[in-house]
Amino acid sequence: MSGFPQGDRGPGAEPTALAEPEAAPLPAGARDVLPAEAGELRALDHTLRTAFAGFGYREVMTPVLEFAAVMDRAQEGGLGHVFRLFDESGRVLVLRPDSTIPVSRLVAGRLADHPGPVRVSYVARAFRPPPPGRPQAAEQRQAGVELVGSAGPAADAEVIGLLRASLAAAGLVDFRIGLGDVSLTAAVLDGLEVGEAARGRLRAAAGMRNLVAWRRAAESLDLPDEGGRLLAALPTLRGGAEVLDRVEEAVPAAGAACARLRRTLDLLEAHGAREAVLVDLGVLRDWPYYSGVVFEAYAARVGVPVAVGGRYDGLGARFGRDRPAVGFAITLEPLHRALAGQEDAPAAPRAGLVLVGGMDEEIGAARDLRAIGVPVIALEAGDASAETLAESDGWRYVARREGEVYRVLDRLSGDRSEGRRLLEMVT
Amino acid sequence: MSGFPQGDRGPGAEPTALAEPEAAPLPAGARDVLPAEAGELRALDHTLRTAFAGFGYREVMTPVLEFAAVMDRAQEGGLGHVFRLFDESGRVLVLRPDSTIPVSRLVAGRLADHPGPVRVSYVARAFRPPPPGRPQAAEQRQAGVELVGSAGPAADAEVIGLLRASLAAAGLVDFRIGLGDVSLTAAVLDGLEVGEAARGRLRAAAGMRNLVAWRRAAESLDLPDEGGRLLAALPTLRGGAEVLDRVEEAVPAAGAACARLRRTLDLLEAHGAREAVLVDLGVLRDWPYYSGVVFEAYAARVGVPVAVGGRYDGLGARFGRDRPAVGFAITLEPLHRALAGQEDAPAAPRAGLVLVGGMDEEIGAARDLRAIGVPVIALEAGDASAETLAESDGWRYVARREGEVYRVLDRLSGDRSEGRRLLEMVT
Repeated sequence: MSGFPQGDRGPGAEPTALAEPEAAPLPAGARDVLPAEAGELRALDHTLRTAFAGFGYREVMTPVLEFAAVMDRAQEGGLGHVFRLFDESGRVLVLRPDSTIPVSRLVAGRLADHPGPVRVSYVARAFRPPPPGRPQAAEQRQAGVELVGSAGPAADAEVIGLLRASLAAAGLVDFRIGLGDVSLTAAVLDGLEVGEAARGRLRAAAGMRNLVAWRRAAESLDLPDEGGRLLAALPTLRGGAEVLDRVEEAVPAAGAACARLRRTLDLLEAHGAREAVLVDLGVLRDWPYYSGVVFEAYAARVGVPVAVGGRYDGLGARFGRDRPAVGFAITLEPLHRALAGQEDAPAAPRAGLVLVGGMDEEIGAARDLRAIGVPVIALEAGDASAETLAESDGWRYVARREGEVYRVLDRLSGDRSEGRRLLEMVT
Repeated sequence: MSGFPQGDRGPGAEPTALAEPEAAPLPAGARDVLPAEAGELRALDHTLRTAFAGFGYREVMTPVLEFAAVMDRAQEGGLGHVFRLFDESGRVLVLRPDSTIPVSRLVAGRLADHPGPVRVSYVARAFRPPPPGRPQAAEQRQAGVELVGSAGPAADAEVIGLLRASLAAAGLVDFRIGLGDVSLTAAVLDGLEVGEAARGRLRAAAGMRNLVAWRRAAESLDLPDEGGRLLAALPTLRGGAEVLDRVEEAVPAAGAACARLRRTLDLLEAHGAREAVLVDLGVLRDWPYYSGVVFEAYAARVGVPVAVGGRYDGLGARFGRDRPAVGFAITLEPLHRALAGQEDAPAAPRAGLVLVGGMDEEIGAARDLRAIGVPVIALEAGDASAETLAESDGWRYVARREGEVYRVLDRLSGDRSEGRRLLEMVT
């Protein structure tokens, strides 16, 4: 790279929480994305979309604005904290807080007659007001899929396999997918005959990821030795299939659930995804919402999951078409941060040319270069700003026409050359 | 095509105003986009982004939510009818009604130190509540550029040339860019010494596109013969450079403005855009907002412009950095309708394969095919839904493994074949 100026390129050059000029502030949790990062985010969403398409998932688009009353149906207790506003008739609208609910609405409605399974994907923003004083994004870019109309290990493995393939396609090297299963947890509770009140305490502990509260709630139940020990330790169990053997041994009634998850692990092997997956029975996100597998993908050096997903078989019925469903959402910003953090080689300088010369003739030359994919900024003869512009935007070449020849500066090597055939000098 | 089932593909298959199931309605002006159309819209925005990049324009992203007080600065009289809501602190937020204002804010703020000219692009939704009872989109997808820090014909021609190149790259065949100039109109009024009150009446008539009101306002001024006739006819003048000759002859004081627009036309010739451009002095959009050229692109059989643009030199100063600017926004849905309307040959069937077989082995085969870009849906052995699924989603091949061979149906030709090497049979 030898000192090639990168303009605003490169990780770290664009802090996500830069102060806006006082003159024109942005709302809490909102931010602008400058060209270097925007280009990388676009490349990322293109890569993910291509990965989804490879598995036969087809993109759908839903509106940003939805009726609150429709979105609220998705979950007992409603949507939580979302952006709300009124339409002309006084009805409450929300900015969609995720895409799973709108896409489930779409699949249950416009695609109700699809024989299924339905494979759809999306790349869309999701909106949540940040908690006061917390530097949390109000708008997140998400890319995800939903597989609707298919239950069982093959569907679960397909979606988790696609998640692994998508993250790998994006260039992510060091990541793990933690895989839990709320139906397995429920089978353990059933097998141990845990009552509703105790389940409520366990669910609350799981919701807060409070392992101590979980253990206390489990120990207070006075269960038989082996079952009691297993339940107390359940959310701490992680590893491979041996975790399932241990559960089944302690609570034989959970055997069927363990067998399902074992089958999923076998299929993940065939998907080439087994190594990335860690059985983690502590992954118990939004328990009442999910109904089977739940999973989270974590990357090195990024504190929030780059993707979350799971099976939520009850959601379709809430929109009038009862079909099982499993899916995931990748959040682009954390994934982008993870990729930026692992970069060892600096990005290659961008091709592209600032071309100074008699405007009329040079526009023709510019068109020829653009046609073969070289970006060209055409300036009028005598424009002295070419080098400055090339530096600030990171273009590699500056060319000037003088008489019959072009004088070309290659900013990467520092070489200067001249010749008559511009195309050969810059490609 | 011979009866190849297209699933939901093809123009007209997805009406934009389809009634949603009563069960889960959408807000006024909101709609879902199903896979066929979504795929085409994505291809379109990829093409436009590539065209913008070819001219050295780099993408930026701004938030959907902005402070109303900041956006309101852009224009005397404020933003008009927009979606408004409150943040946690009771400040009024808006859903951005376009991208020109946010991008101008960004360029004046985060890119204030850029030596300029700044070339930026965006692909983003814009939000406007539809007038009650009118079937107008509340959310529009727009792709556009802004060239900030450069005044004069070369900058105007670059942006109009890029608009033409972008629409051509999208595949649009039959379109015209109507080119007016509010600074030329102002020069005519200056030359004829038209007073403020009369200008107000003319501006109001132009805003409503009411040519009769314009003529009446002009005729009431009692101007000298030639100047009076010219002013009355001004918004009806269209054609080539001869329109400018006529203006200059009748109002010599407008000569400099005419010379600028002539130079722009000459440069458009070099850009290969001259044939697409029609001088149209009736293009007088948002007069107080624009300060120079104004233009609109129209396509055959689509009643709204596919793109609008112009020069608005005063906007940067309202965000603290006074630089001239010119830009345009293409609205994707009308462009997509125009493209759909001109299609003579039906779209080629999509490659892609529904693969039925022993799941474990076939997932490996599926991975090989995906790696070379063939979408594959892998089903478990005995899954009887393969043909139905291929039909509803429009995949070309259905393959089943039987012992050592694959039996493949090519749904395009109707041919059935069998062989050992799946890859060769479906590519």
